[in-house]
Amino acid sequence: MWPLSRQNQPKQFLALMGDRSLFQETVLRAQALDGVQAPVTVCSEDHRFMVGEQLQAVGVASGGILLEPVARNTAPAIALAALHVLEHDPDGTLLVMPADHLIEDESAFRAAVATARTLADDGWLAAFGIRPDYAETGYGYILRGDALGEEGGFRIERFVEKPDLATAERYLAEGTYAWNSGMFLFRADRYLQELGRHAPQMLDAVRDAYGARTSDLDFTRIPEAGFAASPSDSIDYAVMEKTDRAAVVPVSCGWSDIGSWSSLWAVAERDDDDNRHEGDVISVDTRGSLVRASERRMIATLGVEDLVVVDTADATLVAHKDRVQDVKIVVDRLKKAGRQEHLFHRKVYRPWGSYDSIGVGPRFQVKRIVVKPGAALSLQKHAHRAEHWIVVSGIAEVTCDDRVFDLRENESTYIPRGSVHRLRNNGSEPVELIEVQSGSYLGEDDIVRLEDVYGRS
Amino acid sequence: MWPLSRQNQPKQFLALMGDRSLFQETVLRAQALDGVQAPVTVCSEDHRFMVGEQLQAVGVASGGILLEPVARNTAPAIALAALHVLEHDPDGTLLVMPADHLIEDESAFRAAVATARTLADDGWLAAFGIRPDYAETGYGYILRGDALGEEGGFRIERFVEKPDLATAERYLAEGTYAWNSGMFLFRADRYLQELGRHAPQMLDAVRDAYGARTSDLDFTRIPEAGFAASPSDSIDYAVMEKTDRAAVVPVSCGWSDIGSWSSLWAVAERDDDDNRHEGDVISVDTRGSLVRASERRMIATLGVEDLVVVDTADATLVAHKDRVQDVKIVVDRLKKAGRQEHLFHRKVYRPWGSYDSIGVGPRFQVKRIVVKPGAALSLQKHAHRAEHWIVVSGIAEVTCDDRVFDLRENESTYIPRGSVHRLRNNGSEPVELIEVQSGSYLGEDDIVRLEDVYGRS
Repeated sequence: MWPLSRQNQPKQFLALMGDRSLFQETVLRAQALDGVQAPVTVCSEDHRFMVGEQLQAVGVASGGILLEPVARNTAPAIALAALHVLEHDPDGTLLVMPADHLIEDESAFRAAVATARTLADDGWLAAFGIRPDYAETGYGYILRGDALGEEGGFRIERFVEKPDLATAERYLAEGTYAWNSGMFLFRADRYLQELGRHAPQMLDAVRDAYGARTSDLDFTRIPEAGFAASPSDSIDYAVMEKTDRAAVVPVSCGWSDIGSWSSLWAVAERDDDDNRHEGDVISVDTRGSLVRASERRMIATLGVEDLVVVDTADATLVAHKDRVQDVKIVVDRLKKAGRQEHLFHRKVYRPWGSYDSIGVGPRFQVKRIVVKPGAALSLQKHAHRAEHWIVVSGIAEVTCDDRVFDLRENESTYIPRGSVHRLRNNGSEPVELIEVQSGSYLGEDDIVRLEDVYGRS
Repeated sequence: MWPLSRQNQPKQFLALMGDRSLFQETVLRAQALDGVQAPVTVCSEDHRFMVGEQLQAVGVASGGILLEPVARNTAPAIALAALHVLEHDPDGTLLVMPADHLIEDESAFRAAVATARTLADDGWLAAFGIRPDYAETGYGYILRGDALGEEGGFRIERFVEKPDLATAERYLAEGTYAWNSGMFLFRADRYLQELGRHAPQMLDAVRDAYGARTSDLDFTRIPEAGFAASPSDSIDYAVMEKTDRAAVVPVSCGWSDIGSWSSLWAVAERDDDDNRHEGDVISVDTRGSLVRASERRMIATLGVEDLVVVDTADATLVAHKDRVQDVKIVVDRLKKAGRQEHLFHRKVYRPWGSYDSIGVGPRFQVKRIVVKPGAALSLQKHAHRAEHWIVVSGIAEVTCDDRVFDLRENESTYIPRGSVHRLRNNGSEPVELIEVQSGSYLGEDDIVRLEDVYGRS
């Protein structure tokens, strides 16, 4: 979903509708269920601070953040979570939820979860199947078999790949097929048993890797050497299609996979002209369009139809709504040109807060920096640049070589090139400051970290 | 041509194609003619510094900048220029050129000017008529009468208003009609004679107002009381349609009136897909579109056709190419909402240079300021804000209460609230600095100017 999603900030961490990200919505949806424990998150190392911060922002205590050192698809990732849960609860049940979808009808979802729990208690591995309301060709389907009791669960007859349109229409008409949502519910021990039966090499590798885990702040690190030894496979292929205890719970819960800007438009509330606006938009004779303005800039649309317009600090996309899946062509061009607009946003999140490069020139750069309460940047120095800091809100504790002093709103200081410095926020409000960098080289890699509370030195 | 044009920066001062504004192109076109004097510019007070700066930027010495205190249409404005020219040269001839059009074939234009000069020498008032190459309904037309000698001039039979399409097609077929370009050539004294004959009240008012003019730096100020007494009328109505010495010189010189983004697209060089791109644009399956990116931000277009996309620091327009004339609807909405995006750009030009508000927050604002060589801001103070200045290039002379000192690259200073201060550039390179304002009120109107070299105190 470029340009809003970037490599270091994929769509599950974006607030695509409203104030919360898809990840936050997913976590809160799970928290609303009866008898649920703190969520366990499996994510890549790149996203660890974002996961921690987004959990904190919605007031959800973490049940563990497990860092995949390399991507090995869903089956090994879920195995990590299962091992982690079993550490604390030998009877633990996993509700597995990808963090990139929307669910409108939470009560229907809760009812399906209750059904799946009764199946899990009997040793079934339950998949949530979404009852199709149109002939979608972009999803895999699950064909149900015999009913398992009265509560709405079925044996899985088989999994089928993304169909062509005629096949999808037949699936829709037959009424026994459901979309594969990627959500599952099962006892942790049962998942590992079935994994051991059908993918023993994977289970061994994951178990070894998990055994060699280390703790790092709030994160559980899985060593790369061990985890990389696991085959890469999805839970569908590795377990669900092979076990004879696979069940499906069909549900109509307004589920949608936000795969593109057009699918977001399709599920969003729209105005009388079928438009969805976010931010500061002036719309004249515009129909069927999704328009998303960014901070400090308005977008005006005039006499257009079926467009997607998404603005960010450094890139704007103007696309036909039926072509948004080809935004990957744009991203490929950015890659080939060695650019950065597909990798990072101009505003960069760090464990201690964020910075945004608001002005650049030949030998200077201006950054707007926010330091969270209680946070500290690393003790660091730069070989090629000096820095001026002007605090515009909060109270910063500044270390500059031998001196440690407070800097308040409307106070400034100078960090000479080569001096050892640190910025810390001991207060309860965010510190915001303007940094003016001056020097012959201003790259982010001109930094020597001498000490870092986030383990980056 | 919003969002690039704003009330304080109309289209003639914009670099719409290439690096030079339409005003600069017009001045340079005139300078290339034989025997031409320094240009006299008639403009509103709001645009005086822009005119001065744009002349300087292309190295053209000014022949006078006359400030209209109120708008009275073209006949009085041209009368001001005629009076000004006659001060220096009783035989002076005026080539009158609006500053908002393009001419592709400068040699055809030069030949037409030569023809018009011979007519002017004989006392004719010559209009340049553009030979139509299609049936345009948006322009007024001039019907030619008898030929005046061998050189290509004709008596004007009559002026006609913008025609409907059938009439325009007939005009095109008949071959005796030309578009009224708004360009004229005549002796200054002859213009005033004819004005005195056909609009004596106008001539009297303008003559009185010009007589009471004052000098202010490089500008000639016309007092409002006198000039406002003149009737408001165009040269066409007030003089050209009434005099019996009106001539037309038909010419095919690739003239175009840049009235909208679509007319700019129509005359611009375009790529194989009929697109015109300015700035950092990535275009995928895009056809027939004008896309203009602004500094520090890219635009990607995907699967779209016949669009106009124009980005600026604070506003982006996405319009169908056939609807761009309705951008006035957007501007009206901005007016009604009491906004500023139709009045000013984020980057504001001042006689001493420019500033750009690159960051704002609850009690602070960050500006990037450029001071031209030899220029100085006013001696000023602020009741509600303090300022931090960090020089990032050049050498600034800073006055702060009793102290006067130089500030070099990577040096900073603090201007306390209420202190009397000034910034001056005595060097030969621009001074660039970052200003961080801090305070409870940060509006531009919190300023007391104690002294100003530009007459603004």
